[in-house]
Amino acid sequence: MNVVSTVDPRTGGRRPTDLIETDDSRLAEIADQASRAARWLSDLGRLGRAGLLDAIADALEARRGRLIGAADPETGLGRPRLDQELTRAAAQFRMFRDVLRDGGYVEAAIDHATDTPLGRGPDVRRMLVPLGPVAVFGASNFPFAFSVAGGDTAAALAAGCPVVVKAHPSHPLTSHASAGAIGAAVRDLGGPDGVIEIVYGQQAGLALVRHPAIRGAALTGSIGAARAIQAAIDERPDPIPFYGELSSVNPLVVLPAAAAGRGDQIAEGLFASFTGSGGQLCTKPGLAFVPADPGGDRLVEALRGRVASAGGAVLLNQNVRDAFLARAAAIERAGAHVSARAQVPSGDGFTVAPTLVETSLPGLPAELTEECFGPLLVVVRYHEVAELDAALPAVPPSLTASVHTGPGEETAEVSRLVELLGARSGRVVFDGYPTGVRVSWAQHHGGPWPSTNTVHTSVGATAIRRFLRPLAWQDAPAWILPEELRDEFTDIPRRVDGRFEPAVQPVRH
Amino acid sequence: MNVVSTVDPRTGGRRPTDLIETDDSRLAEIADQASRAARWLSDLGRLGRAGLLDAIADALEARRGRLIGAADPETGLGRPRLDQELTRAAAQFRMFRDVLRDGGYVEAAIDHATDTPLGRGPDVRRMLVPLGPVAVFGASNFPFAFSVAGGDTAAALAAGCPVVVKAHPSHPLTSHASAGAIGAAVRDLGGPDGVIEIVYGQQAGLALVRHPAIRGAALTGSIGAARAIQAAIDERPDPIPFYGELSSVNPLVVLPAAAAGRGDQIAEGLFASFTGSGGQLCTKPGLAFVPADPGGDRLVEALRGRVASAGGAVLLNQNVRDAFLARAAAIERAGAHVSARAQVPSGDGFTVAPTLVETSLPGLPAELTEECFGPLLVVVRYHEVAELDAALPAVPPSLTASVHTGPGEETAEVSRLVELLGARSGRVVFDGYPTGVRVSWAQHHGGPWPSTNTVHTSVGATAIRRFLRPLAWQDAPAWILPEELRDEFTDIPRRVDGRFEPAVQPVRH
Repeated sequence: MNVVSTVDPRTGGRRPTDLIETDDSRLAEIADQASRAARWLSDLGRLGRAGLLDAIADALEARRGRLIGAADPETGLGRPRLDQELTRAAAQFRMFRDVLRDGGYVEAAIDHATDTPLGRGPDVRRMLVPLGPVAVFGASNFPFAFSVAGGDTAAALAAGCPVVVKAHPSHPLTSHASAGAIGAAVRDLGGPDGVIEIVYGQQAGLALVRHPAIRGAALTGSIGAARAIQAAIDERPDPIPFYGELSSVNPLVVLPAAAAGRGDQIAEGLFASFTGSGGQLCTKPGLAFVPADPGGDRLVEALRGRVASAGGAVLLNQNVRDAFLARAAAIERAGAHVSARAQVPSGDGFTVAPTLVETSLPGLPAELTEECFGPLLVVVRYHEVAELDAALPAVPPSLTASVHTGPGEETAEVSRLVELLGARSGRVVFDGYPTGVRVSWAQHHGGPWPSTNTVHTSVGATAIRRFLRPLAWQDAPAWILPEELRDEFTDIPRRVDGRFEPAVQPVRH
Repeated sequence: MNVVSTVDPRTGGRRPTDLIETDDSRLAEIADQASRAARWLSDLGRLGRAGLLDAIADALEARRGRLIGAADPETGLGRPRLDQELTRAAAQFRMFRDVLRDGGYVEAAIDHATDTPLGRGPDVRRMLVPLGPVAVFGASNFPFAFSVAGGDTAAALAAGCPVVVKAHPSHPLTSHASAGAIGAAVRDLGGPDGVIEIVYGQQAGLALVRHPAIRGAALTGSIGAARAIQAAIDERPDPIPFYGELSSVNPLVVLPAAAAGRGDQIAEGLFASFTGSGGQLCTKPGLAFVPADPGGDRLVEALRGRVASAGGAVLLNQNVRDAFLARAAAIERAGAHVSARAQVPSGDGFTVAPTLVETSLPGLPAELTEECFGPLLVVVRYHEVAELDAALPAVPPSLTASVHTGPGEETAEVSRLVELLGARSGRVVFDGYPTGVRVSWAQHHGGPWPSTNTVHTSVGATAIRRFLRPLAWQDAPAWILPEELRDEFTDIPRRVDGRFEPAVQPVRH
């Protein structure tokens, strides 16, 4: 039995917990419980699951102090940020509650029997149904909102899929406490074990996705982790869908009029965005294109000042700290100039110095365009906007791309630039910063490889679709159809004979 | 230069064509043209592309004689079936025309800026945008409807993605003629080369999915072909989405009351379904569970009679013929009894004999549950419906599962059976046959592995989603937004601040 330990990133101190790594026999038990819990979630129905999600949100907030108390010493993220993150986690469960009440997410469609150019067409009805138990890999950098009580769990439970989370080793106690909160909400509704379970340990995570009962998997993590999980899935006789949110450098372009008009303000916003949460956000802007002109000079000078006087950033764990230092060294070796670095006393756990590095076009070595997870920003100076046409395609596709414009920049050149950014990202941000992802219906958190491994989102209402699959019924008698597909059911928006029909009594949010 | 040859499956005779296998330099040219054509398709807009699809449907029908004249000697499918298939191919383009006019497929969603529990939430707008040029692998068994002029091409062009088809080697001349029809419709609208192109040859197909310009791929084919394509995609630095429809045994269950009440009728329908088009349909019922009772005896006796007096079936090519004979032999070796086989004169090209084999529960060797592509049906006799609970989970998941019920079978037992069938298939057919897939909005053609390699459909309105990806705009000025995301645009159904809003002027189909 391998004991799970917890590490305080502020000191580097490690201590054992009461938790043990999950072995095969415990995994078998968990998988068995999850399979049985799928029936309970299905029987709860759409509105019953909405109630469950509501109860989970309440349970998380009711244990706010205890959860933050567990997370702060495990992550070093600090209580204010963790407080906000817990609010976000609860909001995610409530958003999927609304998605369930609305019911449009099942994509109900009915084609009545009719004559077609190919003869009599049968009655066909389609909707999305749950995949079955799924595996969720918790992220290091969001101990609540992308972990056990995170958006993947909320979306999967909403879909009707029991969740087995592979706990991130950086916050085992937070994971345990989060599952406790969710489990309590399940039990209050009379639910069984297996609706939410946790496995601990890397081998258990890989065994989990190889297990026949597991019907899908989701990860917010690294490309390396994704490759390991995919390799384990490839060992199955029946591959399962795997959704990974992986790596993103999130370029940001400041156009000349923006730099001239509000360079100080952009320096302030950009500094906050790349250093917030220790720069450990998937959407951290890692690469800023700034004009090589007096407006750009003032902006960069303001950035240097902020970085030089910044405090140290506690990184999540030793791996993140080591990777940050290695990437920063590689960026320096590739010819970028470190123009500002915070003064940080050495020896404090996994603390590092926020860093600003600078380079200029033409030429952008690949080492400068890779994600550096942590508080480092590469500023790239350009002379003409046209130079960006060559530079941006060399930046790996990202979750986000941002552009700051100023007066008079409603031009074809800007239009083309935005098109280029949109072709290589999942969200284009105007005159703002990509961090602080809004949790809402229209949100998209995904993008071309390597930002995600497939065409999906892990934030926003459509994130639920990862845990659903289509099923059609042909000429089915009404008694056997799900209620959402019966003729007389009008509580949800549906497509009937190709025409969109709104719900007759639309749900108020 | 390798010359492409064509083979008449009725005689086995091979002759060279004027076509040559695609080499790397021609592929580079095609990819370049496709990349430029993406711009033209985008500029056409949603309604412009609807007009293009309409024109393609007309062009296909205008060349009906020529196309069928090419396809009949290459496939041996016969003119009546090919005539119907061409009608289906045109109908597919017209269905996606309707999908484009409706506009709901872009999944437009707008969340206006608002206060949230996490502070001010920015304006976020999301819709689906085209992937870019895509590769489509034509299927052997549908020279029109799942090939160059098939549903994948229709869906991809509708999405705004140029298509490069890897022509199936069984019908190169049909492929060439089909691309000619589509290309003519494109030219009539002033379009460029590269909207539809073809590559010939297996190596060219693999080079195609490795090419950086190709942003997605779709296959209707075998598990082997899918593995080869996936391996080529895995060589890319940037993996692309790959949608495969692969293998399906399509179990069909006849319940006792159905066998007793209409055994003859079921024998007739089942015979037509498993022998139609030489049994070479993805949805061919390959495994029929029939009660071991007098009703079942009469049904099976009627089947034997029909099979014994059937004519030969011309299979599509030598590979299909050889695979059919090998699978039939394996099924016999596994202990099933050949109870009827058509009398077919030997030596006629790739002609084989429709075959009925029988076995009984308990016990169902894996050899009997694998797909046998061609006119062979395995009948499995059962004594109690409860036996099916153990037998059905041993059948690989399929595109479809069918159940025939009779009076008095509205029972919990049947309900559980249907649930079992639904858990392991993509479409459950009641009192009918899975072949003859209706082309309509609600249709689903997909299912758990191995029937498809991911959670998608290749028939029905949502097949378009394979060729789209989500993109979000945050705080974007109106002038830069696509019209579908501007506040005042009401021509399509959208979700605004979480509420579904139908189009103000709904499109009539």
